[in-house]
Amino acid sequence: MKMIDEQALLDMTLGSTILGSGGGGDPHVGMLLACDAIRKHGPVPLVDLEEVPDDAHIVFIAGIGAPGVLIEKLPRAAEYERVLQELERFTGQKYDYVCPAEAGGLNAVTPFACAAPSGVPVIDADGMGRAFPKLEMVTPTLYGGKATPFVMLDEHGNTMFAETATNAWAEDYARAGVLASGANAAMALYPMTGAEAKKRLVRGALTTASDIGRAIREAREQHVNPVQAVLDQQDGVLLFTGKVQSVQRQNKDGWTIGEANMVGLDAFDGQEFTMYFQNENLAATRNGEFVATTPDLIMAMELDSGEPIPSEVIRYGYRVAVIGLPADGHWRTPAGVEISGPRRFGYDVDFRPVEEIAG
Amino acid sequence: MKMIDEQALLDMTLGSTILGSGGGGDPHVGMLLACDAIRKHGPVPLVDLEEVPDDAHIVFIAGIGAPGVLIEKLPRAAEYERVLQELERFTGQKYDYVCPAEAGGLNAVTPFACAAPSGVPVIDADGMGRAFPKLEMVTPTLYGGKATPFVMLDEHGNTMFAETATNAWAEDYARAGVLASGANAAMALYPMTGAEAKKRLVRGALTTASDIGRAIREAREQHVNPVQAVLDQQDGVLLFTGKVQSVQRQNKDGWTIGEANMVGLDAFDGQEFTMYFQNENLAATRNGEFVATTPDLIMAMELDSGEPIPSEVIRYGYRVAVIGLPADGHWRTPAGVEISGPRRFGYDVDFRPVEEIAG
Repeated sequence: MKMIDEQALLDMTLGSTILGSGGGGDPHVGMLLACDAIRKHGPVPLVDLEEVPDDAHIVFIAGIGAPGVLIEKLPRAAEYERVLQELERFTGQKYDYVCPAEAGGLNAVTPFACAAPSGVPVIDADGMGRAFPKLEMVTPTLYGGKATPFVMLDEHGNTMFAETATNAWAEDYARAGVLASGANAAMALYPMTGAEAKKRLVRGALTTASDIGRAIREAREQHVNPVQAVLDQQDGVLLFTGKVQSVQRQNKDGWTIGEANMVGLDAFDGQEFTMYFQNENLAATRNGEFVATTPDLIMAMELDSGEPIPSEVIRYGYRVAVIGLPADGHWRTPAGVEISGPRRFGYDVDFRPVEEIAG
Repeated sequence: MKMIDEQALLDMTLGSTILGSGGGGDPHVGMLLACDAIRKHGPVPLVDLEEVPDDAHIVFIAGIGAPGVLIEKLPRAAEYERVLQELERFTGQKYDYVCPAEAGGLNAVTPFACAAPSGVPVIDADGMGRAFPKLEMVTPTLYGGKATPFVMLDEHGNTMFAETATNAWAEDYARAGVLASGANAAMALYPMTGAEAKKRLVRGALTTASDIGRAIREAREQHVNPVQAVLDQQDGVLLFTGKVQSVQRQNKDGWTIGEANMVGLDAFDGQEFTMYFQNENLAATRNGEFVATTPDLIMAMELDSGEPIPSEVIRYGYRVAVIGLPADGHWRTPAGVEISGPRRFGYDVDFRPVEEIAG
């Protein structure tokens, strides 16, 4: 068990932007919420999945909303303070731990905004090992875990509770609710036991985020290459270094959809590269050939500083390194690829591990 | 107290079509559900509002969905059988009576599909005295009554429960849920006590529906004019008799929006008439002047048979009488007109009672 204080949140936030794979919402927003909660209520214990008793009751805490909206309308602490007790009120069940649904992006740290005032620890695990855009795209879904009962609190004082037939229905109802509320909302979802969590979750996902953040920070402090530091630490693959030539981006049905086109620099001089995103970066081609696809992580980092560049932010003129990181093993199974692979998002290509294609 | 059997439902259904004021969904669909439930579980007591103890717990039962969808996908009995016990499960409160939210259209009789299997009586009252398209447009809203906690069950096995800050938010969340479900859903909403019901509801609304239905049926049996029978019984006003010349109708955001244009017959020979609808008929002009607006009821009836013609059905060639009926007194107060008057629906005219304009 570690105690997570404000300083620890900073590395975690930076690293979670990389795990966001271009999406997941701006972690800075989540960090402000979480820091504020920790300042008020004290540091939050982060416990290893192995330390959690099998009969413990656990629930994911996550914010939901269109990423664009999150920038314009900051999520409020009040909903994260109440979300766990609201779920407890409806289910009559006490929850012992909270856990992030996704260690990538904003939702890596939102559980701390709930855990600190609620007085429960956060589990060092998640349901993705990255970010994905839909509520059913979590590892528990692969093992029969149910998204509901869930509870959702919006900033207008509305509470929605649902029990759905499938996790895809849970996504549809939650998305409908958050669109009705016109903003973003705090959720508690995927109630599970400790025994289930041990089978179903990505272990150490928050430590991975912290490790990546620390690698970038230390490389900067030591004036060495932060991109290389992340690649070395995470067994990643350098997919491209280049300059962004053009970006097509549109907001459609709450999604940020588009592509970024680059021309090569350094070892990639004279080559072309395209990164395709639907909130997250989902596929990348080099000279017309796929070099990485979802569920593996694809992330652009500013070439010199190593600063992660989300799909909402990337634009003409950026000099970037694009890295590929292997997805967690849960996602590389046939069932995992079916939910999270390139065909699920409309790309006509089979999934192949990034280290095999481009390693 | 009366017992409502299958025969009694027939008059009620016919009359509720008139109270639907052109909208409210096809009562025939609700009648099939309700008859089936009564056949299985026996007749349902219909109790006068005065007989209900002040400390009794009451809730509206209603179907929600786009009227067009209701025709393509019939609502299922299963959701009405479970909806009351689901609300009881979430709130921990036992309900003693159910009551229609609207005595106009489909939802006049859907409470019987819940009451028969649940073993509770239906109250002879409603929250509109007619039909309106939105969940917050009920008389309890005028007196501070809350739409939530509500529960909504769809045909896919999904259950949604909500507590909202306002009744308009309840509408937004329920509408979002029913659009997500892609069909129609059964709801229990507006929990209230007997004392509150006595202040807030339209008394005898189901008896009014039955009376209108019986007047039409008996006029037909006696070969007298059913339109005149309804006018005489309900202190209504004949707004026009004519032939439908053209109908503009579009389906937009789940609404049936348009107008029907008519030329006069009999006493109205040489005159023009337009009926404007947004699901319900909301305003009517004769020779360019408003002769009736919401919240008063505007309804087209087939000239000879007296058959009510909903806004979804009216088309070129129909020979109709258009009648105006006074809205319940709750709606004619300043607060009532603010929620339900013509300006609420975008018509640039003040509300005036139909009997004053056209009587």
